[in-house]
Amino acid sequence: MKSLKDLKPLILFLREIQQINSAVSLLSWDQETYMPKGGGEARAEQLAALEGMAHQKKIGPHMKRLLSRWIDIKTGVPEDEVWDDPSRALLREVFRDYNKAVRLPTEFVKREAKITSIAQQVWAEAKEKSDFPSFAPYLKSIVALKKEEASLLADQSSPYDALIDYYEPGMTVTRLVPLFAALKKELLALLEKVQRAPIAPRDDFLHRCWPARRQLAFGRRVLETMGYSFLCGRQDLSAHPFTTSFHPTDVRITTRMNEYNFLSSFFSSLHEGGHALYDQGLNAEYFGTPLGETLSLGIHESQSRLWENGIGRSMPFWNYFYPILKEAFPRTLQDIGLEAFYGAINRVSPSLIRVEADELTYNLHVMVRFEIERALMEEDLPVEEIPRLWNEKMEAYLGVVPDSDADGALQDIHWAGGAFGYFPTYTLGNLYAAQFLSQARKDIPSLETDIGQGRLTILTHWLNEKIHRFGRRYSSDDLVRRVTGEPLNPSYFVDGLREKLGEIYGF
Amino acid sequence: MKSLKDLKPLILFLREIQQINSAVSLLSWDQETYMPKGGGEARAEQLAALEGMAHQKKIGPHMKRLLSRWIDIKTGVPEDEVWDDPSRALLREVFRDYNKAVRLPTEFVKREAKITSIAQQVWAEAKEKSDFPSFAPYLKSIVALKKEEASLLADQSSPYDALIDYYEPGMTVTRLVPLFAALKKELLALLEKVQRAPIAPRDDFLHRCWPARRQLAFGRRVLETMGYSFLCGRQDLSAHPFTTSFHPTDVRITTRMNEYNFLSSFFSSLHEGGHALYDQGLNAEYFGTPLGETLSLGIHESQSRLWENGIGRSMPFWNYFYPILKEAFPRTLQDIGLEAFYGAINRVSPSLIRVEADELTYNLHVMVRFEIERALMEEDLPVEEIPRLWNEKMEAYLGVVPDSDADGALQDIHWAGGAFGYFPTYTLGNLYAAQFLSQARKDIPSLETDIGQGRLTILTHWLNEKIHRFGRRYSSDDLVRRVTGEPLNPSYFVDGLREKLGEIYGF
Repeated sequence: MKSLKDLKPLILFLREIQQINSAVSLLSWDQETYMPKGGGEARAEQLAALEGMAHQKKIGPHMKRLLSRWIDIKTGVPEDEVWDDPSRALLREVFRDYNKAVRLPTEFVKREAKITSIAQQVWAEAKEKSDFPSFAPYLKSIVALKKEEASLLADQSSPYDALIDYYEPGMTVTRLVPLFAALKKELLALLEKVQRAPIAPRDDFLHRCWPARRQLAFGRRVLETMGYSFLCGRQDLSAHPFTTSFHPTDVRITTRMNEYNFLSSFFSSLHEGGHALYDQGLNAEYFGTPLGETLSLGIHESQSRLWENGIGRSMPFWNYFYPILKEAFPRTLQDIGLEAFYGAINRVSPSLIRVEADELTYNLHVMVRFEIERALMEEDLPVEEIPRLWNEKMEAYLGVVPDSDADGALQDIHWAGGAFGYFPTYTLGNLYAAQFLSQARKDIPSLETDIGQGRLTILTHWLNEKIHRFGRRYSSDDLVRRVTGEPLNPSYFVDGLREKLGEIYGF
Repeated sequence: MKSLKDLKPLILFLREIQQINSAVSLLSWDQETYMPKGGGEARAEQLAALEGMAHQKKIGPHMKRLLSRWIDIKTGVPEDEVWDDPSRALLREVFRDYNKAVRLPTEFVKREAKITSIAQQVWAEAKEKSDFPSFAPYLKSIVALKKEEASLLADQSSPYDALIDYYEPGMTVTRLVPLFAALKKELLALLEKVQRAPIAPRDDFLHRCWPARRQLAFGRRVLETMGYSFLCGRQDLSAHPFTTSFHPTDVRITTRMNEYNFLSSFFSSLHEGGHALYDQGLNAEYFGTPLGETLSLGIHESQSRLWENGIGRSMPFWNYFYPILKEAFPRTLQDIGLEAFYGAINRVSPSLIRVEADELTYNLHVMVRFEIERALMEEDLPVEEIPRLWNEKMEAYLGVVPDSDADGALQDIHWAGGAFGYFPTYTLGNLYAAQFLSQARKDIPSLETDIGQGRLTILTHWLNEKIHRFGRRYSSDDLVRRVTGEPLNPSYFVDGLREKLGEIYGF
């Protein structure tokens, strides 16, 4: 039986490529946190150059030679030696990456890196000034670029599928459309129930003054209790919260800060903390190889949403943390009891900004983006039409319309970064999260009590054991089946939400 | 006549290498400022990998092929075409770098990067605990490594020369020994005069409370007045102040902060600001090529010392800034007039820490290090002997002896980073600085008035024009001659200092 040690030359070469990728990640982190503005243009050139170098190595003759030693370079099928499971998975995933990368010329990759780096800077300014037209030409270039990319990737039935496959391997428009259509129907029905409910929790106090330092300190305490290691990570401020990893020993998160909105910073900290636990939970021994990489964006998002909503919006969590929160903000919460607070953070209220949306309407925000990017990719929707279409869909699904594009079509960085096909993974993450958490409750009968007493790392270890440590060894579909005994099933999400909201809203 | 545009393929390739080097610089900056501690080991691996990659490109077959198109690859002599001056200089300097780099195997470069990265982290802890023995084995490895390096570089007459040549091309032990001996004699005599003087300025008030934020704000104001662009730079805190450049549009400085020592943070800001003006003043068009790089550490240091001492410890500078300083620290300076302040910041007082030394004794600190590293390199001085020898020399030259190695042989990061041959450039910088500034006064007759009225950028533009924009086009010796009309002449430094101290101390 052959094992990973037979693949050592390949693993060392993959690690070399990873070192460039980790430098790219640091350059990007720095760009979002500390880089002086004047350095933007040179940074764009630098990102393009380094991404080009990594790409060249990924598709170069050395990689081809290495892979050809063990697999048929046309099909990816291993020579008929007996490989153990991890090695077989490693070869399968390396070939998957190679086969995708080899179709993109280095020139294309460099061009894409440069355009998206500049576009992200233009987007930041356009958003500040709520000036969609100044961003439109850049977005137009990016849409053209992504179509070019999809056609280079070739063998996919639809250009949008080719892009989705980057983020959620195996997922297709054909699977997503009915899944999302059914979900949208259920969510719209649930939203109507909520809006017709006889009672509704107040949440005005969430907009009292929550001093920044104490918000950060409280967030830090929660992150530490979850098991996020500040020895192997840090938290900074940025325009849009994100998690980035250079190695399992250096996984950084960012948050935004609003002193008059407790939800904004706290739940983004929990969210990014969940992502970060996944990155910190990868097996460092496999660093640089697919076995040391996260599986898909949907699975990544399941980790963040599990903590943000599954845990962070649950009663047991606040049974433990509410007294601590009250101690940190005695004046702000002077007249507010636990029940009222719990109602407020679970309040459903259609609003404009995805990252601040409640658990229910969040997925409707995703539908808006999914449908628009599908139209951009598959129906040649002109970029200029986006704000109009955005506002129409917001009206139809959420009943609210942004006054300005800053709160509408310009709110997310994703398209500026070329990330088309990314948005659907947010909703997939919500669905996976609910299904995983339901299984964790079955596997750990004491879980609610543990969480109620602050022993959150019991859940972290379960996630490490069941999900994190495997990296890309299994497909998302296989992983979900291995962990929960059944395929992806959206009813865990919908039923859980209906139950929680039914209690709060009295239906 | 052939020009730079004929060298375009070479220039593009050099720029590609520079992109890796700039990533290495960011990784190092991050390591000193924001990196979580747990990420240290992976960072060391990463630096080693990237430096190895850059080195491989520098010495690889593609570089050889490129160079061979225009020069004899054995001697560096251009094929007998007619090249204009910049192209000739570019080819000369690229060959110089190539010829050095090609002698160091990639394996060696990776090993060195990794050992020095770990050693710098060990040094930081050893310094904190004043524990030289815990650092000694790492330093021993580094000394062995540097000797190995010197022998690989081969054709130098002494191992120490081979290392000095990295930092100050053309400088040798043979030139340095008499230069430094004469200087030491003059400085010891001057120190004796100062110590026997009938009067001495008080400086107790420099150790009153100087709140950190206001120190940073005042430092920032001075940096802006000098012409340092915060649009293309930023200032952070680190254990040891430094300047790093990723591109002329992104040049960062760091400082340290001590609320009970005004000199420490302010003059290190001025110092790093001087370095940064040089980096920001390079011609971005030549980015990545020797024509867009700084010339030598001695010349670099001349820029920092010119601002720190030549300007920052001069009366015209404080004529302008003292009222502003008093406004920022009204209580601290309540009872202190300009004359007293000027005396205090120019007070000569032998002390333990190089970076906090006065203008005179600073060079004696350099002599201690120069003599020790020369003995390490040329006389096999055992590493364990360093603290004893250090303390003996401090006693002999400065008359003070550290209580702990944290304030003695562990105070500087240089050796941990493998930078042997670096220290002498500090004193060379002082000498160049005095000579350049004397010339600036001749070229700009109104300079003292301008500075006294806050028009510091007149000097910055002179430096841009005379020094910065040339990059490595001329040798240090040629540059000094071009700018000042004569070779390096230490009497500008000694005479200037004697005059200033004579006034203050009344001799």
